[in-house]
Amino acid sequence: MTDAGKAGEPTRIAPRSGAAFKLHDGQLLTVIDPEGQQVSDLLAYNAHDVREVLSSGRTLDYAETIRLTTGHSLYSNRSRVMFEIVHDTVGLHDFLLTPCSVATFEHFYPDKPVHRGCFGNLAEALAPYGISEDDIPIAFNCFMNVSVDGNTGGLRVLPPVSKAGDCLKLRARMDLIVGLTACSAYDSNGGSFRPIDYCISDG
Amino acid sequence: MTDAGKAGEPTRIAPRSGAAFKLHDGQLLTVIDPEGQQVSDLLAYNAHDVREVLSSGRTLDYAETIRLTTGHSLYSNRSRVMFEIVHDTVGLHDFLLTPCSVATFEHFYPDKPVHRGCFGNLAEALAPYGISEDDIPIAFNCFMNVSVDGNTGGLRVLPPVSKAGDCLKLRARMDLIVGLTACSAYDSNGGSFRPIDYCISDG
Repeated sequence: MTDAGKAGEPTRIAPRSGAAFKLHDGQLLTVIDPEGQQVSDLLAYNAHDVREVLSSGRTLDYAETIRLTTGHSLYSNRSRVMFEIVHDTVGLHDFLLTPCSVATFEHFYPDKPVHRGCFGNLAEALAPYGISEDDIPIAFNCFMNVSVDGNTGGLRVLPPVSKAGDCLKLRARMDLIVGLTACSAYDSNGGSFRPIDYCISDG
Repeated sequence: MTDAGKAGEPTRIAPRSGAAFKLHDGQLLTVIDPEGQQVSDLLAYNAHDVREVLSSGRTLDYAETIRLTTGHSLYSNRSRVMFEIVHDTVGLHDFLLTPCSVATFEHFYPDKPVHRGCFGNLAEALAPYGISEDDIPIAFNCFMNVSVDGNTGGLRVLPPVSKAGDCLKLRARMDLIVGLTACSAYDSNGGSFRPIDYCISDG
């Protein structure tokens, strides 16, 4: 157990890869963009029943905004709080779009090499927990900059505004299995790929 | 089999209730707002494997807009087209929010009687197909008017702009199990509750 408020040494997620881990009720997850302009897709499942899963629709409904930041909660499909956002140095994240995948690479980047994307990385990382591809919902895309035109409804994926060292801290409100990536898509990350760091602490 | 382009007699979904039915690949579903200002939550599952389900995130990603209308497709979590929107007399629908439920009634309408909402109505209607509450994703909310402030991200649920007789026509692109409601929430429907009609045709 680490000291209250003091996170341990960060764990690094290499560029275009993913990880999964358990988080206990009350623990703090810090997602860090160590070099800047890098998106990290976050998923969460109830550790005791993985049919309970992060829900963009429930979260946006309760928050009454698509701009989720400090003070907002991330809800499950059963309307229960999975995470509270307790600190956010960026204030610009996405909860509309799904993890990039082979299909989205083929669609958006037909001239570039296909990558399994966050979807494939999350599926592999979550498989040991009995979670499969079809169980992957809309991710909470940390640092992802998606603009919505209020008049036309048009969506644009813009480079993240996060700078080196920016972070998002989320407190678990139930025992969770978490999936987390360093995103693999060109547009989401300003054209290149960097790592993501994360810490788990009890403080 | 009905004549091409000519739908049969509409089936009525009573106010604050729901229905589920099969739709074959190529069939046309017409969702009608018979009295105006009434939302209808739409869900779809691959009839041969209900783990393949409508995905807001995939759909919005491919459409590059939250304003889905004629010409857009609704995608599954496996990036396959479930529906094509072929006719739309309204042009304002929502694909951000989840079906209203006991929990959302308690949250948004603490002084009003709790209702099981579209979520409960869909769960009951879909149960005979082996689909349970946890399998309900973000619905495509026909005629629902949700504004997004492009600057602040703020969401507002406004009265639908649909008028009596307005309709949305969707062509099935695979064999589907469909869930459809006449929505039960106050704000979504301008404060009162009306029926929804639908037709299935081969045209």
